[in-house]
Amino acid sequence: MHEIGFIRDLAVVMIVAGATTILFQRLRQPVLLGYILAGVLIGPHTPGMLVDDPRAIDDISNLGVVLLMFTLGLEFSVRKLREVGIGVLAVAVAEVGLMLWIGYGIGGLFGWTGMDALFLGAIISLSSTMVATRTLAEGGQRQQPFAQLVVGLLVAEDMLAIVMLTLLTAVAIGGSVQAEAAFTLIGHLGLFVVVGMILGLLLLPRLVDYVAGFGRDETLLVSVLGICFGASLLAAWMGFSVALGAFLAGAVVAESRSVGRVLHLIEPLRDMFAALFFVAIGLKIDPAMLLQYALPALLIAAVVIIGKTLACSLGIFVVGHDARTALRSGLGMAQIGEFSFVIATLGLSLGVISPFIYPIAVAVSVLCMAASPYLTRSAGGLANGLRRMTPRSLQLLASSYSGWLENLKPVNENAAIAAIFRRLLWHIAINILLVVTLFMIGAYVNGHSWGWFAVFGIHRDLRHTLIWACALFLSLPMLIAIYRKAEALGMLLAEIGIRERFAGSYTQAIRNVLARIIPLVTLLALALLISALGSTILPPRGIALSLMVLGVVLAVVLWRGLVKMHARLQAALKETLDKPGPSEQGPG
Amino acid sequence: MHEIGFIRDLAVVMIVAGATTILFQRLRQPVLLGYILAGVLIGPHTPGMLVDDPRAIDDISNLGVVLLMFTLGLEFSVRKLREVGIGVLAVAVAEVGLMLWIGYGIGGLFGWTGMDALFLGAIISLSSTMVATRTLAEGGQRQQPFAQLVVGLLVAEDMLAIVMLTLLTAVAIGGSVQAEAAFTLIGHLGLFVVVGMILGLLLLPRLVDYVAGFGRDETLLVSVLGICFGASLLAAWMGFSVALGAFLAGAVVAESRSVGRVLHLIEPLRDMFAALFFVAIGLKIDPAMLLQYALPALLIAAVVIIGKTLACSLGIFVVGHDARTALRSGLGMAQIGEFSFVIATLGLSLGVISPFIYPIAVAVSVLCMAASPYLTRSAGGLANGLRRMTPRSLQLLASSYSGWLENLKPVNENAAIAAIFRRLLWHIAINILLVVTLFMIGAYVNGHSWGWFAVFGIHRDLRHTLIWACALFLSLPMLIAIYRKAEALGMLLAEIGIRERFAGSYTQAIRNVLARIIPLVTLLALALLISALGSTILPPRGIALSLMVLGVVLAVVLWRGLVKMHARLQAALKETLDKPGPSEQGPG
Repeated sequence: MHEIGFIRDLAVVMIVAGATTILFQRLRQPVLLGYILAGVLIGPHTPGMLVDDPRAIDDISNLGVVLLMFTLGLEFSVRKLREVGIGVLAVAVAEVGLMLWIGYGIGGLFGWTGMDALFLGAIISLSSTMVATRTLAEGGQRQQPFAQLVVGLLVAEDMLAIVMLTLLTAVAIGGSVQAEAAFTLIGHLGLFVVVGMILGLLLLPRLVDYVAGFGRDETLLVSVLGICFGASLLAAWMGFSVALGAFLAGAVVAESRSVGRVLHLIEPLRDMFAALFFVAIGLKIDPAMLLQYALPALLIAAVVIIGKTLACSLGIFVVGHDARTALRSGLGMAQIGEFSFVIATLGLSLGVISPFIYPIAVAVSVLCMAASPYLTRSAGGLANGLRRMTPRSLQLLASSYSGWLENLKPVNENAAIAAIFRRLLWHIAINILLVVTLFMIGAYVNGHSWGWFAVFGIHRDLRHTLIWACALFLSLPMLIAIYRKAEALGMLLAEIGIRERFAGSYTQAIRNVLARIIPLVTLLALALLISALGSTILPPRGIALSLMVLGVVLAVVLWRGLVKMHARLQAALKETLDKPGPSEQGPG
Repeated sequence: MHEIGFIRDLAVVMIVAGATTILFQRLRQPVLLGYILAGVLIGPHTPGMLVDDPRAIDDISNLGVVLLMFTLGLEFSVRKLREVGIGVLAVAVAEVGLMLWIGYGIGGLFGWTGMDALFLGAIISLSSTMVATRTLAEGGQRQQPFAQLVVGLLVAEDMLAIVMLTLLTAVAIGGSVQAEAAFTLIGHLGLFVVVGMILGLLLLPRLVDYVAGFGRDETLLVSVLGICFGASLLAAWMGFSVALGAFLAGAVVAESRSVGRVLHLIEPLRDMFAALFFVAIGLKIDPAMLLQYALPALLIAAVVIIGKTLACSLGIFVVGHDARTALRSGLGMAQIGEFSFVIATLGLSLGVISPFIYPIAVAVSVLCMAASPYLTRSAGGLANGLRRMTPRSLQLLASSYSGWLENLKPVNENAAIAAIFRRLLWHIAINILLVVTLFMIGAYVNGHSWGWFAVFGIHRDLRHTLIWACALFLSLPMLIAIYRKAEALGMLLAEIGIRERFAGSYTQAIRNVLARIIPLVTLLALALLISALGSTILPPRGIALSLMVLGVVLAVVLWRGLVKMHARLQAALKETLDKPGPSEQGPG
């Protein structure tokens, strides 16, 4: 065994990581920071370099990304997102959008190209789940109320990160001119994510639970890794990033009943490859380049820390938490991390950003990571200081705002009605999404496999008719469900909206009309949407009409059966999503 | 992320491994067998190959070996070896020696070269810890008495495997002619193992426990991996195999108090990389070559199964277990596995064996693995059948043999004396080993760094004197300890050996003489041994003598201090080895 190139590099990285983790743990500094610095020290750009094979470095880094994104996905889960609450979700969207805009603006100020500025915005917009949760854990603050808010914000940002990765890939590949190509790519990506999630949710959690039933950790682990790498490979094969595939696989497996066991098994792998990933980031950095871009990096780091803290604090305060909690949450989010590296790597590998963006991203994240524990520790003092400095009138205004928000919250009966209302809207949205997905798959098949149809002697018009008919009949259960939910929604709205004291003796009549109109309008809107989507596969008008009529007739005749079928499908998905939560498993 | 060569190959391997593990678990077949077969199917020699980059395959395989050997080492541990018992140890040595000899003989019969035959012997001599412990676990027999014997035999074989890897490297590099070079290499290897183990035992368990005290799994895992890869790199850098380094690191870390937690963290990594390792073995195989060597493989597999079963069963019976338990133990050992691949890879990478040895090793191990669950399951029936077929007189003989052995075992007072006796011998042996190590390090320094001495104007004679003096003074505590233990041993022997009824009134005098003679003889023998070892660094005779006298004077003057120092050293080692055992952690 004398040819040990890869193992030698890996060994050097592991030894350095081991020493670093002990040292930084001892110094009570963020370990991730240590990994990056260690990587710079042993990298090919430093005199006395220890690791010099760029191939091995890339291999290590890619493996790290896949496992990191998979565990992030595992800790994401659709259920958690629902628990986060609409307020925190809105804060995350607003804050990420703001940081994206600020980053883009800074890039413009520096006179960078539009693409560089756009990527800078993306890089500084997403906080680091790993850094934030570790800082909380190392400070022993995991159970405090503000920590729950931070975790909620991070989960929401994870979701936005995926959207952003998708859009950036599209924009980068499409360029700013070929809007049509970019639109097609976004469509494909959306299709991949939606179809992947739905098929995944229906199949994978069951598979994982089945394998978990064997009761052997090894089998469970190897199968889950197979799923993770399979999804990554599928994503890469369809032209997307491996990170996206791994994250989706994690989010889907997170819905299995055995997610606790899976997390437990994956965590050591995550820790090993996270260490490798962060050391590999350091390896890519030329210290000379860092020095050269020290000024912009310092400026951007200051913007990240101040901007993220202010945006998150303000947002959290506005959605109804006290000022102290809001400030602590904001300080907990004031850093960037793993997504920044993934985005910068994406830009580099697509060849659309300048090479100096990467070292700047690393420098900024290193600065933020280094500041992170001090920010969190100083939160208490900062809050007290701020309170002393704030004029009394402003304090009164703040507390009266909180009180007003408290009064706004729906109570008792209203709360129950609001819950029903939300559930109906959710169901309608999901069913519309499914119908749209079916027609988009139809359009995709139409666009890509016409040669295959030609083999069977099926030509253009007949092909269109066939695909359209298939999509329509497959979506019948969903369409009926949409109609029924919309009907219920109409009745609910009629009951609440049309009060007797306004409408008098017409009350009942108006209510009836409203209860009928809403489902009909919904279906009409849906029909328009579908024909817009399916315009490439619309059969000749006469056939389309007769198909539609046939569909309606079938719907009426098979109503009961289709309702039952939909109920079964819905139960399957619901069972997956609404399972009793596993024992508390926070991220990190 | 469009350049995904390594990640693509790894993903394909992981997906196939995941599917295989589910399938073979479902079919109740050994999963390792499935991995190898899957590897053959997706390998570069099969039409429709999926993995075709030999570099990636080697990387994967090397990483697998390191982590596999490290976990084998973790589950080995010096304490376990002591618990195995001298009887089982003897059985393992005899059985491995027998199989080595048989393998060598078969190679000769086939007309192979001496080196091929030797490696074949080594390949078939070592049973597979992974296969055997999995078969036990899958059959739910982990707690049965025969399973304890199998685990004991496997632990003893692990130790022999390391010896064998060492010797094979030496023989292969030295060739059969250059006996002197081979001897030097064996010396170096022995030095590496002994120094590594002792320094490791003094430092690493403390370090691991210190890191474990941080209470963070990530830090513990990354540090332990750093130790594992560090030891592998050190071994490779000194010209030995990475497998040896990883195993030693595991065996040393196994003595830390936190070994339970470490095992828990490493197990998922082991499982992932074991899957990769076994798939990678399959990848290296050309099915055409398997077919070509089917006949010898079948023959050798039969020899392995029959030979191992008979040798182990007979051995276990001879050291005092009933025939049924002996047979079940023997059947549990009737396979070869991971060490065979490591040895075959070693031979290939050193270029000393013919290329057909590797596929034969794989074929034989696959056949044995496939047979393994059936053998274990049929043990009960086989035992009953054998009992019916055995003549009654032979059965009587067997049971009276067992009874006789039972009577031989020391009881009460004798057992206590035997325990003291054993402990004294152990202490003397370890201290002699330490002294010898010190002088060998001296000889090594003398041989390799004379240029360094020359810089300081220190020439041959003075250098020899300096090194010899250092080694002598450093070993003073050990020498005094040897003298004291030998004295105690002498007194014990005198007390037991010289009974009053034989020696009459001379009893006390003879006892005194014996109690003095034994330590003196021990020291004299040691002095001879050292001067033989240190002949290359022996200073001029006059100086040597005066140094020796100085040493004796120092020893007498500093007696108390040196005794105390030795006691502290011994306490440090003893504390490491005699810690309260962690919660039951069987291998597998």
